[in-house]
Amino acid sequence: MHDIPANHPRKVSLETRGQLVKGFEQGIVCIPGLIAHGRGEAFDYIFGEKTNHFAQKAIEASASLLLLAKKPVISVNGNVAALCPGEVVQLASLCGAEIEVNLFYRTPERMEAIKKALFAAGARRVLGGEEDEAIIPELFSERRRVSREGIYSADVVLVPLEDGDRTTALKKIGKKVIAIDLNPLSVTAKAADITIVDNVIRALPALCTAVNQLKPKEKHTLEQILAGYNNNMVLGEALEAISLRMKELARR
Amino acid sequence: MHDIPANHPRKVSLETRGQLVKGFEQGIVCIPGLIAHGRGEAFDYIFGEKTNHFAQKAIEASASLLLLAKKPVISVNGNVAALCPGEVVQLASLCGAEIEVNLFYRTPERMEAIKKALFAAGARRVLGGEEDEAIIPELFSERRRVSREGIYSADVVLVPLEDGDRTTALKKIGKKVIAIDLNPLSVTAKAADITIVDNVIRALPALCTAVNQLKPKEKHTLEQILAGYNNNMVLGEALEAISLRMKELARR
Repeated sequence: MHDIPANHPRKVSLETRGQLVKGFEQGIVCIPGLIAHGRGEAFDYIFGEKTNHFAQKAIEASASLLLLAKKPVISVNGNVAALCPGEVVQLASLCGAEIEVNLFYRTPERMEAIKKALFAAGARRVLGGEEDEAIIPELFSERRRVSREGIYSADVVLVPLEDGDRTTALKKIGKKVIAIDLNPLSVTAKAADITIVDNVIRALPALCTAVNQLKPKEKHTLEQILAGYNNNMVLGEALEAISLRMKELARR
Repeated sequence: MHDIPANHPRKVSLETRGQLVKGFEQGIVCIPGLIAHGRGEAFDYIFGEKTNHFAQKAIEASASLLLLAKKPVISVNGNVAALCPGEVVQLASLCGAEIEVNLFYRTPERMEAIKKALFAAGARRVLGGEEDEAIIPELFSERRRVSREGIYSADVVLVPLEDGDRTTALKKIGKKVIAIDLNPLSVTAKAADITIVDNVIRALPALCTAVNQLKPKEKHTLEQILAGYNNNMVLGEALEAISLRMKELARR
């Protein structure tokens, strides 16, 4: 990667891409992960590369749900491990969540490379790939294989950068699902209980901040935040935001 | 790649991605090309994965410009060579254009792999990488190196899947530029004389059809089509189309 000038208008986006390419070279990121990142880049660009109001609402609701959870689990894939391993570890520690590696394109080598990145970022325990894995019914990809001490027995699962089938399957076995997905039209975005339509590199730090802020609150307050949250409405607001931005740009 | 069921709603998109991954394995496509493809996928998805009215207008104007050109050249990069080498060869033959390989991430191996793919698709002559290359001023990437018999002496250059800097540099040395770019907000889209906001896998065949239909017309008719074409208006229509589609989806 060439050095990116400090005043480049899309510096963060280009540096993030550089991190992902490094992750690819380390065996953490897979080829479909690179393409998926490009899709995310396009949506992020359309949203103005910032955390919008609809994302902030979902972040607060997610923090409440994570704090109310009996057993929250953060599911990690290659792109998440390449882009924000430190934030995953911090969030897990803040809300007492397990970290589990769960991959669509699963190989023992990728599982290990991702675990290594998480341990290097400070994780004490990373689940995934045990001999006695459980199976999520009605899910036919490698993602069906989950840890008994992790996703299988979780009540709330945070799935950043997700494929649609798994969110639907997790919902069917009674899990509450929080997704981070820049595409408000995706199957994941629609199936999740809470969808944070934001770039994972901004959403995870913002989620840590929200958990810190809400941690001292009473259970009742957190339940009220959750009761007042409507995911369909939030997704509608994200679509409206694209609509308004494009209309404004067309006028110029 | 797994086989994609015939009734999968996004079959073409997934197969196209498979072709690109194959191109990557053959040394034709580079890592940034994979990410760029993802960005295109997102815009294509937003546009409904079809050739819209604004793209069709640009395609007709492009066909007219190519037929009026004294020396049209089609610039080919890795993604274009991986996705539609046959269509490049067909279009070049229909409008008497040269084919030139021009790369941002240029290595002798990639130049050769791309030329090989074009020859395999039926090309008789492919320019690019000659010892006596000319240099485009004010362009600092590898893309500045062009063939004297190709882009350097062309009057019209078709640049599918382009980076913004080059289009601007080509305009500065008096070339007419036709771009194929799914992002109506990109520097390329704004700098080009004609921007076809469509997926290259649909735009190139549609361009061949339009050239065939307009070929028997008189020069005057082609000039009229061009005179009636307004690229800013077409880009505005593309943004309006996104705006309307998002509004409609938000209502559901």
